[in-house]
Amino acid sequence: MDYETPQFFRVMQYAARAERDVVDMVSGSPDWEPPETLREGLREYADREADAFAYPPSIGLTPLREGIAERRGVDRSRVLVTNGAGEANHLAMTEAIDRGSGREILLTDPVYPYYAGRANLLDAPTHYLPVDHDGQLDPAVVREAASDETAVIVVNSPNNPTGAVYPAETLAELAAIAEKHDAVLVSDEVYDHFDYTGAFESALAHDSDHVVVTNAFSKSMAVTGLRVGYAVFPPEDGPMSDLLDAARTRHMLSVVAGSHPAQFAVLRALQETPPDYYEDNRALLRERIRTFTDALDAAGADYTTPGGSFYVMARFEGFPGTMANVQRLVDEAGVAGMPGEAFGESRADWFRFALVTPRVEEATNRLATFFE
Amino acid sequence: MDYETPQFFRVMQYAARAERDVVDMVSGSPDWEPPETLREGLREYADREADAFAYPPSIGLTPLREGIAERRGVDRSRVLVTNGAGEANHLAMTEAIDRGSGREILLTDPVYPYYAGRANLLDAPTHYLPVDHDGQLDPAVVREAASDETAVIVVNSPNNPTGAVYPAETLAELAAIAEKHDAVLVSDEVYDHFDYTGAFESALAHDSDHVVVTNAFSKSMAVTGLRVGYAVFPPEDGPMSDLLDAARTRHMLSVVAGSHPAQFAVLRALQETPPDYYEDNRALLRERIRTFTDALDAAGADYTTPGGSFYVMARFEGFPGTMANVQRLVDEAGVAGMPGEAFGESRADWFRFALVTPRVEEATNRLATFFE
Repeated sequence: MDYETPQFFRVMQYAARAERDVVDMVSGSPDWEPPETLREGLREYADREADAFAYPPSIGLTPLREGIAERRGVDRSRVLVTNGAGEANHLAMTEAIDRGSGREILLTDPVYPYYAGRANLLDAPTHYLPVDHDGQLDPAVVREAASDETAVIVVNSPNNPTGAVYPAETLAELAAIAEKHDAVLVSDEVYDHFDYTGAFESALAHDSDHVVVTNAFSKSMAVTGLRVGYAVFPPEDGPMSDLLDAARTRHMLSVVAGSHPAQFAVLRALQETPPDYYEDNRALLRERIRTFTDALDAAGADYTTPGGSFYVMARFEGFPGTMANVQRLVDEAGVAGMPGEAFGESRADWFRFALVTPRVEEATNRLATFFE
Repeated sequence: MDYETPQFFRVMQYAARAERDVVDMVSGSPDWEPPETLREGLREYADREADAFAYPPSIGLTPLREGIAERRGVDRSRVLVTNGAGEANHLAMTEAIDRGSGREILLTDPVYPYYAGRANLLDAPTHYLPVDHDGQLDPAVVREAASDETAVIVVNSPNNPTGAVYPAETLAELAAIAEKHDAVLVSDEVYDHFDYTGAFESALAHDSDHVVVTNAFSKSMAVTGLRVGYAVFPPEDGPMSDLLDAARTRHMLSVVAGSHPAQFAVLRALQETPPDYYEDNRALLRERIRTFTDALDAAGADYTTPGGSFYVMARFEGFPGTMANVQRLVDEAGVAGMPGEAFGESRADWFRFALVTPRVEEATNRLATFFE
């Protein structure tokens, strides 16, 4: 399979060139407002003394690392601030392979395409593990696939694209499998604020030396463009402390540091945004999911109600989610989704719709008309 | 030699813990004001619609790439916006090796430590080429060292740490050497606004398919913390077009994109900052260089008057630039410089002083008293 990340861009370009109005259900960028406190943080930064425009510490602003550590219940020394969750995952995967305990990568199918792209970049043998209809990963499948050749297992819960929220026991078992094979479990929790099941629990709960948790403020604060994320590495005094050292070095040599104004603004928002902000966005998404899945029911589609994140995968009988059909939906229905093949072989028949548009209802009407 | 980049931080930490006031001549962050237009750009960004907080294009904001391309006289397609010059150099060096025409890296001695750190990270055989007393690199030395095993030659002019500005002929010859051996010349021109000789010319003038030019707004706009830089790659329709493709892919998979507000603010400053801003800062640095080198004369030190950048290397008889003596200068003179050994073996006796502090005159007085 060719995990060409630009598939996102190809669909978006196609939609932009369409002669009709198109509802964008492709991109994963939240459409709602960032916290007002974040805007205030940027304004405050703009007025700071000249020395505030200098390099932040390579590992991130100290109070930001402190704020993250406090919320995650870990020691600050374990937190590396990165250029979004993207860099956090990149560093975690790269160092997990570079440490030399195996070279193999375990990913799920369907998969978030960037993980697959990074596996290609690292030129590492990669196995794709099937998930069930609801997107759940059976630990027995992982146990069967894992060996001492396994360097890293990458999971994402709440999941893009399936919307699955893994139970705590799944993550505990995955951590145990990583430990058994001296591998690393990378748990990407970037959608942790978008859990509608109440069951989400961070992989950090398992207190394993073989777990790296990655995250970002991109989705929770609706600021994918700021590029502020982080990774929580195993403790500095534990057997896997080399991972953090190596990641810090690679981060310094590849990007030097993250952007100072972005970190400053996120810190302000982290400290001062009321819980309502996050709750309101969750409520908004619940409502959109309900609206959209009702329409899918009406259209007789097969779909999964997401337990988390803000994507819905669906398939329509006689209308598989190929790129050609994605283009037909753009031209004939005025709705742009992603072809399932972008996420792996197992969901090649499916579409993925991102519910981060204020026009979910409009999209449902258009789809209902198209499929009626 | 151990190119531990944290030597910068070790000296700064030592200086911060000193019981006396210390003039910081360690860091390379400009101490003057960023352009007012840049602050305005940040304020304007803070007030933009929600969708302005989304991902910028992975390769950089289009008008920013256009502005860069126009100023550099190249096609926009060749410009990749990066997380500072650091990422630009990282990508250029990595892809030059990854393309498979040799694995060897040629660097100068003294060297900017990050280049050496990246060579270590890439695990590539590295040769250090001596420069003359004034920091000039003799192309004959490079020609002698280069072979078909050479993947990349990295130079920096105006130079950190020597202050040398390479003549246009040197860069032309280096480009020719890169061509001859199917290698890449990476020309880091981040100090191009700080040329006091009038002789600086970009390596882009040579119109070679084997040249990658890297740069950033970090020094010219006094915003090292914003992390906005760029690389100009060989043309997309030329024999080295794979370099750009590979760099775009690695950039996307490792950091996704640069920070949106930082790019937006830099764009505004690029479009609207009057030439006076740059001229005034150059004049300020000329004056500091004069003040500082006069004091070095008075102290009987050996030094090079920089033709560009904002560093002065100096050595004092009977007082070599070791870490121990750097610490003595902190404690006994109240001046923090960098030990020469941080930049390579050839200048282990020297110190490097960064003139990006408003207290250059105070530092000169303190050094004069210490060495009298």
